[in-house]
Amino acid sequence: MDAVITFTTDFGLADAYVAAMKGVVLGINPGAKLVDICHSVKPRNISQAAFVLSTAYGFFPPRTIHLVVVDPGVGTDRRAIILRTPGADFVAPDNGVLSYIIHQYATGQVVDNRQPLDGAEAFAITESRFWRSPVSPTFHGRDIFAPVAAHLSLGTHPSAFGEPVNSLVVLPLPRPHRTPDGTLVGNVLHIDNFGNLITSLKSGDLPPEDGAITVEVGNEVVHGLSRTYGTAEGLLALIGSSDHLEISLKDGNAGAFLNAKVGDEVKIRGVH
Amino acid sequence: MDAVITFTTDFGLADAYVAAMKGVVLGINPGAKLVDICHSVKPRNISQAAFVLSTAYGFFPPRTIHLVVVDPGVGTDRRAIILRTPGADFVAPDNGVLSYIIHQYATGQVVDNRQPLDGAEAFAITESRFWRSPVSPTFHGRDIFAPVAAHLSLGTHPSAFGEPVNSLVVLPLPRPHRTPDGTLVGNVLHIDNFGNLITSLKSGDLPPEDGAITVEVGNEVVHGLSRTYGTAEGLLALIGSSDHLEISLKDGNAGAFLNAKVGDEVKIRGVH
Amino acid sequence: MDAVITFTTDFGLADAYVAAMKGVVLGINPGAKLVDICHSVKPRNISQAAFVLSTAYGFFPPRTIHLVVVDPGVGTDRRAIILRTPGADFVAPDNGVLSYIIHQYATGQVVDNRQPLDGAEAFAITESRFWRSPVSPTFHGRDIFAPVAAHLSLGTHPSAFGEPVNSLVVLPLPRPHRTPDGTLVGNVLHIDNFGNLITSLKSGDLPPEDGAITVEVGNEVVHGLSRTYGTAEGLLALIGSSDHLEISLKDGNAGAFLNAKVGDEVKIRGVH
Repeated sequence: MDAVITFTTDFGLADAYVAAMKGVVLGINPGAKLVDICHSVKPRNISQAAFVLSTAYGFFPPRTIHLVVVDPGVGTDRRAIILRTPGADFVAPDNGVLSYIIHQYATGQVVDNRQPLDGAEAFAITESRFWRSPVSPTFHGRDIFAPVAAHLSLGTHPSAFGEPVNSLVVLPLPRPHRTPDGTLVGNVLHIDNFGNLITSLKSGDLPPEDGAITVEVGNEVVHGLSRTYGTAEGLLALIGSSDHLEISLKDGNAGAFLNAKVGDEVKIRGVH
Repeated sequence: MDAVITFTTDFGLADAYVAAMKGVVLGINPGAKLVDICHSVKPRNISQAAFVLSTAYGFFPPRTIHLVVVDPGVGTDRRAIILRTPGADFVAPDNGVLSYIIHQYATGQVVDNRQPLDGAEAFAITESRFWRSPVSPTFHGRDIFAPVAAHLSLGTHPSAFGEPVNSLVVLPLPRPHRTPDGTLVGNVLHIDNFGNLITSLKSGDLPPEDGAITVEVGNEVVHGLSRTYGTAEGLLALIGSSDHLEISLKDGNAGAFLNAKVGDEVKIRGVH
Repeated sequence: MDAVITFTTDFGLADAYVAAMKGVVLGINPGAKLVDICHSVKPRNISQAAFVLSTAYGFFPPRTIHLVVVDPGVGTDRRAIILRTPGADFVAPDNGVLSYIIHQYATGQVVDNRQPLDGAEAFAITESRFWRSPVSPTFHGRDIFAPVAAHLSLGTHPSAFGEPVNSLVVLPLPRPHRTPDGTLVGNVLHIDNFGNLITSLKSGDLPPEDGAITVEVGNEVVHGLSRTYGTAEGLLALIGSSDHLEISLKDGNAGAFLNAKVGDEVKIRGVH
């Protein structure tokens, strides 16, 4: 069956770890279509992987299987899980790397970093008959996650791989907040290949009169929102392709210019 | 249909932008075969993308669709186009990134950076029914170019996507010239992963007696042409795999050794 | 036919050399499934390519074709070969890049760097009717290896491409040795994306009482073996996913911490 399976890892491109996973998948489902999302996640950076995945999964065909292996706890007692949503399946360690997806199906309070689910199902991966044998304690991506994704792509129901799970680990995602003087404060979530600062502020967070806001980042102030990267001069702010507020530098690299890093604050002031 | 679609971008490998485009393509044509040409084009470097594409497109099967998204003017009034040649289709912004292909089908004079075409057809991409909706003003690669390429791969005729266009934007490609004393002067077009300097001089530009020329680059002089990278010592010159004169360093990196950069002059003197 | 063809090169990701090879393959076998193993091998580093390939090929489906182009002698008189093992085919220059595979099928003594084979067959690639024409003397990957791999994937027998070869070039692979005082000495073979030092010592080389050994690397000593990257603190040693002893740094980069490089010695002392 020609299901699509995507790969998101922190394995980099100078080793053969990703290829080993793909070989395992093709040995089980020769018809699977394999697509790389990203392998340049910084080692063990779960929140970066979570963000990068969040910007891509929604554009894949229904029932795509997303394999995510950023797994610093490999071989310890962290759980491995399948998350089935109405649109897709995710195969990953239960360490927060699916936080943005889980957030779409959240219900109730996060307790001990675990978010109860509504409208999506999760299953622990415990049935070893689907795994490679023996399992290396240091590479579950190859020996557990890859064969599970391949069997899923052949139509095996997620419940065959283990017991249902009611809640999944989530990261404390940075949420915009408002200060007493009305300033909206968000954070840099990601700095992309162009040096664009992608922030936690989404279009719905901003006042309806976009033109009348100021955006403060570092020691710089940007007045109003642009529509494209090519229409303003110098630093500019716009709503990017994943609906987040971005800070960009015309024909340059805003991240380098501002010496910015993930987590930096970005402040929005309306003009009344 | 299992058409081949290639991808050339400046998106890098640390974001999910390329993956989002691939997801969109597979949602429209699940049978498309997706091949990366290059995503490490420097941000907004149209001429680099044009050169890299020129070294690969000719080796793909007939009717391959080449999607090229190096698009600093995204969202502005730059045109998006389909170029149909006898061998392939190209989907790209009309910003010069197809210059080497257009050059094969050029007729008449370039006017206002636009080259009239002969033997190839071009069409503006204006029919929004083929696009994703809404279109992000900052990511036409995902919302316009990818779905257009996918529909092309299903057999939709290019004329369905918009009106014919008679001329396309070209870059001023560096052409070799000859000085009054008979010296042939070219430029470095590209420095590859091995540090080879790939120049604008092609085999047909050189005098027939290859062995009797000298190649000057920086403060160095190379006498005669080698046939392979492995047969000479030190700096050597040869006709590379895309028919361009290259300067190479045996077991080393000529670009680093010569501190060379794209645009540097390379001079050929015949020995009479 | 939907055979799997893998690619391992030192071409990097900023040029279109890999894409040109893939285009050639798809022109001959449109159904081939193309999987990248690694393109970030350092230029001309045959031993690195050999190691990286050795960690991946065993995980691919039976009869996968592995195309390996790390070929500093391209265009010289180095031989091009097909190696057929019971599980897979390899298409590569005969320069040692297949050493780890050849080692599985070795018989008799290495003479003049050549290892006689047992249980696997090798053939010289000399029949030019399978090649692109003309052949660039600087890019056999595109003009010879890629079309040969594609024709192999269509079912052409390796003997059609040239005469049998009885022995293949091998690198002097570093082997662990034991000093007079009983210390087992190995070497660092590879440093991966996480900074893990992967050594030439395999699980079978170690004494059965793992817990009672010490591992010395640089000026550091590690006591005992861990089972996973996540269970110890600081520097740790474990048997990694390819059965080699690895030195790792919890939540860090052992290679950078130890300023290690490929070839460095690692010493194992048992405790009696």
